[in-house]
Amino acid sequence: MTTVHLIEYEDANDEVRAVYDDIRATRNTDFINNFWKALAINPQQLRRTWESAKAVMAPGALDPMTKELIYIAVSVANACEYCIHSHTAAARAKGMTDAQYGELLAVIGMAHHTNGLVATLQVEVDEIFKVRS
Amino acid sequence: MTTVHLIEYEDANDEVRAVYDDIRATRNTDFINNFWKALAINPQQLRRTWESAKAVMAPGALDPMTKELIYIAVSVANACEYCIHSHTAAARAKGMTDAQYGELLAVIGMAHHTNGLVATLQVEVDEIFKVRS
Amino acid sequence: MTTVHLIEYEDANDEVRAVYDDIRATRNTDFINNFWKALAINPQQLRRTWESAKAVMAPGALDPMTKELIYIAVSVANACEYCIHSHTAAARAKGMTDAQYGELLAVIGMAHHTNGLVATLQVEVDEIFKVRS
Amino acid sequence: MTTVHLIEYEDANDEVRAVYDDIRATRNTDFINNFWKALAINPQQLRRTWESAKAVMAPGALDPMTKELIYIAVSVANACEYCIHSHTAAARAKGMTDAQYGELLAVIGMAHHTNGLVATLQVEVDEIFKVRS
Amino acid sequence: MTTVHLIEYEDANDEVRAVYDDIRATRNTDFINNFWKALAINPQQLRRTWESAKAVMAPGALDPMTKELIYIAVSVANACEYCIHSHTAAARAKGMTDAQYGELLAVIGMAHHTNGLVATLQVEVDEIFKVRS
Amino acid sequence: MTTVHLIEYEDANDEVRAVYDDIRATRNTDFINNFWKALAINPQQLRRTWESAKAVMAPGALDPMTKELIYIAVSVANACEYCIHSHTAAARAKGMTDAQYGELLAVIGMAHHTNGLVATLQVEVDEIFKVRS
Repeated sequence: MTTVHLIEYEDANDEVRAVYDDIRATRNTDFINNFWKALAINPQQLRRTWESAKAVMAPGALDPMTKELIYIAVSVANACEYCIHSHTAAARAKGMTDAQYGELLAVIGMAHHTNGLVATLQVEVDEIFKVRS
Repeated sequence: MTTVHLIEYEDANDEVRAVYDDIRATRNTDFINNFWKALAINPQQLRRTWESAKAVMAPGALDPMTKELIYIAVSVANACEYCIHSHTAAARAKGMTDAQYGELLAVIGMAHHTNGLVATLQVEVDEIFKVRS
Repeated sequence: MTTVHLIEYEDANDEVRAVYDDIRATRNTDFINNFWKALAINPQQLRRTWESAKAVMAPGALDPMTKELIYIAVSVANACEYCIHSHTAAARAKGMTDAQYGELLAVIGMAHHTNGLVATLQVEVDEIFKVRS
Repeated sequence: MTTVHLIEYEDANDEVRAVYDDIRATRNTDFINNFWKALAINPQQLRRTWESAKAVMAPGALDPMTKELIYIAVSVANACEYCIHSHTAAARAKGMTDAQYGELLAVIGMAHHTNGLVATLQVEVDEIFKVRS
Repeated sequence: MTTVHLIEYEDANDEVRAVYDDIRATRNTDFINNFWKALAINPQQLRRTWESAKAVMAPGALDPMTKELIYIAVSVANACEYCIHSHTAAARAKGMTDAQYGELLAVIGMAHHTNGLVATLQVEVDEIFKVRS
Repeated sequence: MTTVHLIEYEDANDEVRAVYDDIRATRNTDFINNFWKALAINPQQLRRTWESAKAVMAPGALDPMTKELIYIAVSVANACEYCIHSHTAAARAKGMTDAQYGELLAVIGMAHHTNGLVATLQVEVDEIFKVRS
């Protein structure tokens, strides 16, 4: 159960409504998901988070679907059920195929596996990997 | 410091050497990184892990660089220093540009951010996200 | 579902009852929450945990509400649903206002965000931060 | 080792310099810590992160030192060495006493302890904790 | 809710059926748990994971019940509800007594506790602990 | 670098010395490792932690070496470098063989692997696993 009451559009103040309006316009849908309605208890935090999300997840040097795959990977490692469901849905909406999902799954599993092995063995970083961009 | 002695090629048994040989042939280099030399204390585990990694990270429905980005994202969330360095180097070797790295960074930051917000608020999954492939 | 049967007062042995009695007396309520009833499967562990909790969460150099905010922050990062709900309720019972909760949320989100950025970049600690108390 | 070259003031572009200038003015010091110099590889991300941090960590319903304690608690759970050092230094700069630090330590330890116990036992949330603000 | 449709035996392709058959034969039961039915969306990943699990969890230098205790400990720290339940059931099936479970609980709690304390204090590794096998 | 000054025996107050004396007597060595010297900044927390550790890690329904393996598994998942080194050394001192260590490594890797797969797929707990002790 959410720790706060969700704030619906009709109960929102002007600052919150402005964000909701922008979410709707940007996504071309009237639907506002629970995350934003919960976050609205702190309108400044709502606005900052939405503006960052909009900028960060927009097409750029990485395509939007790839960004969703990265988002899922982080959310899995942080055991965030809501985030896993919402970004898996978003990845599918952005074109993720079943084959791509199957490979995402395998890479996430592999990464967790070797993260665990490396931490157990406390492997030291090879000099050759210490390259900088 | 690694918790075990690294096993060099010349000190390895036949099972370990066979894996080292395959790593070298697959990657077209004589270099074997510390992870495999540490993992070699359990030759069966070495072989299973290498064979899985080789299969999972090969080109498929997702391209190899995208797989490295996903690997980095998981490793960051698990705070695996070695894995972050080795897979950042691998992503660069597979063509990751500075602009792509900058966006990877932003998406990882954003995902951690909203993971934290969602967990604090215990947001419930919207019905609309409960889609299955 | 809890992995064990909850142990109610009437079914508890003397060691467990003594802890339940102290919880009730300390909190001035008859209510015993599920955590203690589950932990009672190991009476020594129950006693140690309760005695530590009672000592650690008591007023001291930090006030009890601040301690609850810290507790929530840890529980969020560890994705502990029960702990988030119980300590959010406790923080409110100890006077946390909606405005304070909104700021707690923002700080937790910010901390997760920069934790993710720092891990991705593997930033080295500035010498100036290496101060000791 | 940082995965990127730190960007010093003299090598920074105008967007980065504007952020560095604001960090210096806000903190009343010429010192820029490594985190910002690394983050500067993505100037938009640098600006967004700094502006959020400045807003979130400012005095409000929670005092700045309490916010640093929450930040430390999250950073500990995420095993972020840099963040632990930088925010422990910040908490001290904002007045954290040795006694307060000792209690912060105890609360963080306690929270991790019960997070682990609760997850093992998979304790279900008591109805009474399901209160909303 | 699982993000994919579970694949039942009758709907499975030959590669998946071969794994299901081996699971049934190895465990001497017709029951296939949800994990494998979900993983079957990627048949190669299903096969690799099952073969690794079969090899790793078999009796060896460590007995099967001890391996389950280690599995539970990892799953608790990663907040994996499914894994905690399935491996707690497996440990019991392999002979874990209530007394052993109670001690497992206490050790997991203690380990989380000191992990949190050590991270807060950033304790440096004593030279004497740097031994290698 | 530790965030506090380590407290040596000669500089310790009576409460801290009593714990140090008990550590030495219990372990039959004069050596006190850094963890306790750092924790000594909060003498009550030092005492509580030591007394709990002494009780929890003592022989019982689980043997001391098995307890160390569980401790390592938790510490790996929490990325606690100090804890991994100190408890790996402790496990060896309590008789862990190289073969046992190699299997511990494999189980920890496997558990991380399936934890990641399960979280990605959000697998629901099978009814059959919902057994209680």
